[in-house]
Amino acid sequence: MFPRLLTTFALLLTTVALLSLSTSAARYPSYGTLQTTKSSGVLNVAINNTHSPINLFDQFVQSDLANLIETLQVNDTDVRVVVFSSANPKFFLAHIDINYFLPGYESPLPVFDVSIPELTFPVALLWNITQLPQATIAVIEGRARGIGNEFLMSCDMRFASKSPSVLLSQLETSFGGNPGSGGSMYLAHEIGRGRTFEYVVSSTDIDAVTADRIGWINRAFDTSRELHSYVQGLAARIALFPAAGIAGTKQGINAASRPPLEVIIQDAQKVIETLGASPAVQAFSKKFLAATHNQTVGPFELNYGEKLVEL
Amino acid sequence: MFPRLLTTFALLLTTVALLSLSTSAARYPSYGTLQTTKSSGVLNVAINNTHSPINLFDQFVQSDLANLIETLQVNDTDVRVVVFSSANPKFFLAHIDINYFLPGYESPLPVFDVSIPELTFPVALLWNITQLPQATIAVIEGRARGIGNEFLMSCDMRFASKSPSVLLSQLETSFGGNPGSGGSMYLAHEIGRGRTFEYVVSSTDIDAVTADRIGWINRAFDTSRELHSYVQGLAARIALFPAAGIAGTKQGINAASRPPLEVIIQDAQKVIETLGASPAVQAFSKKFLAATHNQTVGPFELNYGEKLVEL
Amino acid sequence: MFPRLLTTFALLLTTVALLSLSTSAARYPSYGTLQTTKSSGVLNVAINNTHSPINLFDQFVQSDLANLIETLQVNDTDVRVVVFSSANPKFFLAHIDINYFLPGYESPLPVFDVSIPELTFPVALLWNITQLPQATIAVIEGRARGIGNEFLMSCDMRFASKSPSVLLSQLETSFGGNPGSGGSMYLAHEIGRGRTFEYVVSSTDIDAVTADRIGWINRAFDTSRELHSYVQGLAARIALFPAAGIAGTKQGINAASRPPLEVIIQDAQKVIETLGASPAVQAFSKKFLAATHNQTVGPFELNYGEKLVEL
Repeated sequence: MFPRLLTTFALLLTTVALLSLSTSAARYPSYGTLQTTKSSGVLNVAINNTHSPINLFDQFVQSDLANLIETLQVNDTDVRVVVFSSANPKFFLAHIDINYFLPGYESPLPVFDVSIPELTFPVALLWNITQLPQATIAVIEGRARGIGNEFLMSCDMRFASKSPSVLLSQLETSFGGNPGSGGSMYLAHEIGRGRTFEYVVSSTDIDAVTADRIGWINRAFDTSRELHSYVQGLAARIALFPAAGIAGTKQGINAASRPPLEVIIQDAQKVIETLGASPAVQAFSKKFLAATHNQTVGPFELNYGEKLVEL
Repeated sequence: MFPRLLTTFALLLTTVALLSLSTSAARYPSYGTLQTTKSSGVLNVAINNTHSPINLFDQFVQSDLANLIETLQVNDTDVRVVVFSSANPKFFLAHIDINYFLPGYESPLPVFDVSIPELTFPVALLWNITQLPQATIAVIEGRARGIGNEFLMSCDMRFASKSPSVLLSQLETSFGGNPGSGGSMYLAHEIGRGRTFEYVVSSTDIDAVTADRIGWINRAFDTSRELHSYVQGLAARIALFPAAGIAGTKQGINAASRPPLEVIIQDAQKVIETLGASPAVQAFSKKFLAATHNQTVGPFELNYGEKLVEL
Repeated sequence: MFPRLLTTFALLLTTVALLSLSTSAARYPSYGTLQTTKSSGVLNVAINNTHSPINLFDQFVQSDLANLIETLQVNDTDVRVVVFSSANPKFFLAHIDINYFLPGYESPLPVFDVSIPELTFPVALLWNITQLPQATIAVIEGRARGIGNEFLMSCDMRFASKSPSVLLSQLETSFGGNPGSGGSMYLAHEIGRGRTFEYVVSSTDIDAVTADRIGWINRAFDTSRELHSYVQGLAARIALFPAAGIAGTKQGINAASRPPLEVIIQDAQKVIETLGASPAVQAFSKKFLAATHNQTVGPFELNYGEKLVEL
């Protein structure tokens, strides 16, 4: 698509200029999985996990996200809006690295949020995204399952193209687990209780049009060009406003609509900590890793919603 | 409709086989108002109140539901999904037995949930349905008003056909009462605050298409065949997954989207306990029982949403 | 439009008859900005701020609303439903008087709700509207921004015509502020978390059709005639029911869907108290007052959603 290429090209041109923003205060190892560009108060972040063909939410992406979040928390630049997109046209963020569920696996990642040390690293990352003083927007053009969708829910807003590559789901129940970072709790606020049960308990993929209709995402656009045009216009408009007003308004919306952290800990994180250690989850994880050839592009990663019944 | 007949026939064939499931541990009198069949982890329960032409939510149905719930709580079979439907094509579950509101009426039913003895029997039934470790799905092909709709809201998911027999409402305000088991609280999560006020305060019937559009139900299907086909497919899929994952995922969704029990007690049950004893409710109940010839099929039970203004 | 004229004419004819209802117990100065008529248990209240060409939410409207609310709280008439509309075809309620944010401004209004003295006058008004024993319905045929929309959200139900004059928004973020009476918190319950962020943080106007589609309002009607006809029918139906049932049902819905008062105070009112005193808000308020010629009809008041980027 010509306009898409133009957009991508424009992104590449400005990538180098602002890269310093996400590395200046790095407390964690940097792996270059996030391409950042900044323009007039808007920081564009393209997720590009060069260690994974499916933009896996692995230790590399988490480490880079940790650095980015800590930089944004300081809020000492003029960034008022952060737009997350993906450099991988088929995968926005696939899911968590399923190797985590194999017996004996130990994460190299430390505690992220030292003020709440009981939070696991990924739960702490997503919670802190909701706390950022900037407005956050996700631009979705590929798959996002499991923690990939939980990442989307931790952003303030979610827009997608109607590309058949957009497939969202919480797939954890099919493993014998549960959405451990609270994704189903955010979803219940967006699409209601009954539809959350339907999609999450059945681990079903949802496409962009249906996701728009029921409120899972803000809106689905016919083309990638319309998607990017709308989001960049929205981001530019918000970036006109005083930073304190954006942060103050976010505080009110979060207070009314975000699951409380203690509920996320008690009824999501602690549940997956127990279930994740069960033989059922470990056995299914092995089958999954075998069927996906360790999380590479193929029928299971592309169409998990349909293929899972074969596992 | 030919496919419908086939489905019904298939259900009848397997009814006897699993009936033991709902009677094995019976603490309450059994009346046979629930027809159960089990297949590959899915328990189908057809509500068939042979004591009432309108599938009244009376002491017989409540007693049988109590036995069923206690059996499911033990969760010692492979049942992972429970599908509730109705054997009465015009009434899924009509409403509570209005004789309860006449002066001097005393329920023969004891405390159901001894861990929370202040709960009335019907409130305890519905709350315990939301706590079941199995996924619960309602298949709606007839009317469900008052506690009939509250029963629907206590299920995890709700699907309906577009049959004109599908008419849902909380009708209590028209009596001078309120939805006493928290039905309006669950509804507010599904359809929003404003639309909950509109439908509940005005005691208006909603049809399946509108209920789908605003989120009261998960989805409305053109035909009974499509409805049953979708739900049986969904149930079979969920039944593939480990029981612990289903229960763990339910815990998270409930924590974020279910009205807290103390709110249901304080702002629903206690309110109806007060209002239900008022002369206004007692007088209207007498008029209602007269107009419906003690809750039999006729214009008032069929079309209460339209007819109530004549009472 | 002929039917519209008829409706307006009918309203005028009955205006005088019931005016006493809103003035009988007046604790606050009365300015005649609310035209009231009563018929069969329904009180129609047309907002008509003769001190402002844009139906400003200023001290006059607030004083008259305070008297009206106190009269309705006593609930010693047969009023069961209150219908709020506007006598100004372009503005339902514009927004708060922006002069409030200029340095040195002091409100002549005292504490309204002495049981909760920390509430500012407008926050106390809106909270007490949600507490009224009557059902409350807003009929929207013009703009409602900022506290104008927060007023709408404090009503139980909201219906609009599809007139291009219907433009709703929370515009505070564009000033460097936030919706200080909890409007975004109510909105999050109606339209979800993501869409609330989108519209509120970007201070974007929404039209009636879109507001209906995402749940911001109950419904949008093609014509003013259909709007009034539906609402009057709905109000007349609710007015048939016992007052105690309406109030009891409202208690349950509020308990499940209204932001808690302490959250409104902490995360809305206190935030605007801090932000409203900031140089950024004061500077923007001055620009706004200049651009609107002190809040008169013109491009900025008519089309703020589009024009704000020029400020």
